[in-house]
Amino acid sequence: MIDQFKQWFADHRDTIYDDFFAFLKFASISTDPAHKKDMLACAGWLQKYLETFGFQTELWETSGHPTLYGENLSAGPDRPTLLFYLHYDVQPVTPLEEWNSPPFEPTVKEGKVVARGAVDNKGQCFYTLTALKAFHALSKKLGINVKLCIEGEEEIGSEGLSGILDAKKEKLKADYFLVIDFDMLGEKQPAITLGMRGITTINISCRNSTVDLHSGSFGGFVVNPARALMRAVSVMWDDEGKVTIPGFYDKVKSFQKEELEEFAWDVDPKDLAAPFKVGAFAGESGYSLLESNWIRPVLEINGMSSGYTGSGFKTIIPAKSMVKLSCRLVPDQDPKEILSLIADFLKKKLPAGIDVELELGHGSRGMITSPHSKLAEMTAQAFEEVFQTSCKKVLCGATIPIVPELAKVSGAELVMTGVGLAEDGMHAPNESFGLERFEKGFLSIARIVEILSGE
Amino acid sequence: MIDQFKQWFADHRDTIYDDFFAFLKFASISTDPAHKKDMLACAGWLQKYLETFGFQTELWETSGHPTLYGENLSAGPDRPTLLFYLHYDVQPVTPLEEWNSPPFEPTVKEGKVVARGAVDNKGQCFYTLTALKAFHALSKKLGINVKLCIEGEEEIGSEGLSGILDAKKEKLKADYFLVIDFDMLGEKQPAITLGMRGITTINISCRNSTVDLHSGSFGGFVVNPARALMRAVSVMWDDEGKVTIPGFYDKVKSFQKEELEEFAWDVDPKDLAAPFKVGAFAGESGYSLLESNWIRPVLEINGMSSGYTGSGFKTIIPAKSMVKLSCRLVPDQDPKEILSLIADFLKKKLPAGIDVELELGHGSRGMITSPHSKLAEMTAQAFEEVFQTSCKKVLCGATIPIVPELAKVSGAELVMTGVGLAEDGMHAPNESFGLERFEKGFLSIARIVEILSGE
Repeated sequence: MIDQFKQWFADHRDTIYDDFFAFLKFASISTDPAHKKDMLACAGWLQKYLETFGFQTELWETSGHPTLYGENLSAGPDRPTLLFYLHYDVQPVTPLEEWNSPPFEPTVKEGKVVARGAVDNKGQCFYTLTALKAFHALSKKLGINVKLCIEGEEEIGSEGLSGILDAKKEKLKADYFLVIDFDMLGEKQPAITLGMRGITTINISCRNSTVDLHSGSFGGFVVNPARALMRAVSVMWDDEGKVTIPGFYDKVKSFQKEELEEFAWDVDPKDLAAPFKVGAFAGESGYSLLESNWIRPVLEINGMSSGYTGSGFKTIIPAKSMVKLSCRLVPDQDPKEILSLIADFLKKKLPAGIDVELELGHGSRGMITSPHSKLAEMTAQAFEEVFQTSCKKVLCGATIPIVPELAKVSGAELVMTGVGLAEDGMHAPNESFGLERFEKGFLSIARIVEILSGE
Repeated sequence: MIDQFKQWFADHRDTIYDDFFAFLKFASISTDPAHKKDMLACAGWLQKYLETFGFQTELWETSGHPTLYGENLSAGPDRPTLLFYLHYDVQPVTPLEEWNSPPFEPTVKEGKVVARGAVDNKGQCFYTLTALKAFHALSKKLGINVKLCIEGEEEIGSEGLSGILDAKKEKLKADYFLVIDFDMLGEKQPAITLGMRGITTINISCRNSTVDLHSGSFGGFVVNPARALMRAVSVMWDDEGKVTIPGFYDKVKSFQKEELEEFAWDVDPKDLAAPFKVGAFAGESGYSLLESNWIRPVLEINGMSSGYTGSGFKTIIPAKSMVKLSCRLVPDQDPKEILSLIADFLKKKLPAGIDVELELGHGSRGMITSPHSKLAEMTAQAFEEVFQTSCKKVLCGATIPIVPELAKVSGAELVMTGVGLAEDGMHAPNESFGLERFEKGFLSIARIVEILSGE
């Protein structure tokens, strides 16, 4: 079956890449208002493209950038429905000077296309669409109904799409839900992801004077807001790497051994970190490094600043200090509850008299889904056929906040997957995507659809 | 006696201010190489000025900006010698947009002259010189020899002057040594300063990856260098505000009650901090706030940074983190020893595998001198006559690193004083100096010289 798609791809390679590169050329940077026009042009182009292979489309207005919805319900109401989640927005390109070719002029080099969005998510989106186009081109009957939800705000928190989910509930109903925005474990090792951690964020600022003070004239009697904040934050962990905030672990889901045993616990996180020359590793005591990333919540410092940070020295008691914290959450932890535990803790630990400002984020919940669902089994089967090796089942320490919401609204079995690799440099300069992997992605999607169609 | 000087000042007010403002017009910013010419022009102008009232001068080359030396030894070798320390360099003017008038165009407003250096130290320097000029103009015999050491690198650490002290030892020998670079306790409350804390600085940087990492993909197993550094630094103090670094207090001089009882312990540090709306105060347990600032060493955070610090949120494990620390030291604490204690402590507290870089500063010692020296008594007497109120004797939590070195080389009794006020905004935009205070400063110096001369 795969051979037929392979042949079609070979016969139409030039057209496929011409279209893909046209898609990559839109500077669809969602975070930058200056690119609003590019966003709309990109969504419009994609809408027309979908219509060339049998999809009916709608451009959904949101509070931000529009979501492109497409459907091909030709299989009929008694057949199952598969929903894909993809996104057409990309990250900013800074620092521009580190790019070897212009980020929105796709350039092929050593078998890879280099461009912003090459993999995240335009590349993953486009091989998915190309697979659906192949069914149309080959006049192969779709044995399932297919829905596409291609949003424009994944890189900026998906607020727009989140805001219209209720209104679009019926449209998004499905039996199977594939999120194609994930990585493989290695060039030859496909994987499907069956759980994600949630997230919540908090910014804390402290101020104890209108301006920076002379550290000689004031040091010893004025509370230093850098020291006060550092002290309050640093006791949020004990020596074992456990979070000390009362109640933090109260609702942490504990898994049955059987629930977890299907996952690939032989993945070595140190291998994942090797490209970045990481020297020091530590997880929560009582858990492996991988467990600490996959099934345990963490609290991390994402940024901090206070006082003078340039070269040399400025002997001041800083006027203010700031720390940005975030938690990755596991199922059953409520982001709002966790935030209020952190806020309470900080208020108790920071000295009286100091001005404290807390800025609380929105947050989203973690989730885990069965490794034994029909979708999981069939997606793994497709990958195994294409890559000729067993497909690993993994969890993920990261978060796509919209996914649990979409999963709930769709009512579908969920699998998250993709053929990205850390080395593709998503979000970084010279983001790239191997064209051979693009083709394998195409084949995998085609085969998933075939299998779900009953072939 | 004061009346004679008062009258002379009144008779020559215009000339005095013309000269003072000419001095203020030089953009003698020592830290900025672009102002090298201004520095030299300023020193040259001042050299000529000294020669108009009987001083012999030398411009001493240093590794940086020159020091202007002047002497009037007409009193003869059997009379005592008084050395003044002053400086002609000033702080940078940034942020320029916050100035209401150009910083190097002295502007008189509501009885104050506004200019960079108005008080620090050109103002304090110039009333001192004007007092010496008055002796010459009034044909009053100097009963003491006077030496002037007017340096050009006070604002950048005095390395140049420090480097030539040994070579200039003989020239700098004196019986009395006045440093005119200090503040009063209030508009009507003169004070003399008889001790200063020393200083030492250290920058610590940690790195655990080549780039910032995704906090979802890596959070839980990669050591976060912000968290590691915060944790190591925050345990440098206990809950009582005491520094926990082993050995930190070992050489802290403990004073006899009698040694300290002359000092003005009724000064309220909260009053000093009031203009800056400070809300939280704390000192070392077992000591008053003022003791914590004057006679106890402190360790402070002067700056810190890590990761993303802009608006919104970026969920990363930062690649690196940085903290700037400094200690204010008391007599008998050796800056080098203290630095090595801190470095040892940090090395033990930071996790293995993380890259740690320590950048150690030079440092200088603290010092305290007798409130009962002849110079202290006579300076206080002069202030009491001019201000018609008792003069307080105080210590100072800050540091002028060159002063203990100069005191040692000169072999003289030391008093530090001046008529600055915190509200003059030294180092800040719109630095100013009240002209009435300028005149009082002039009278005080004239009277000190008279008293030391035996009148």
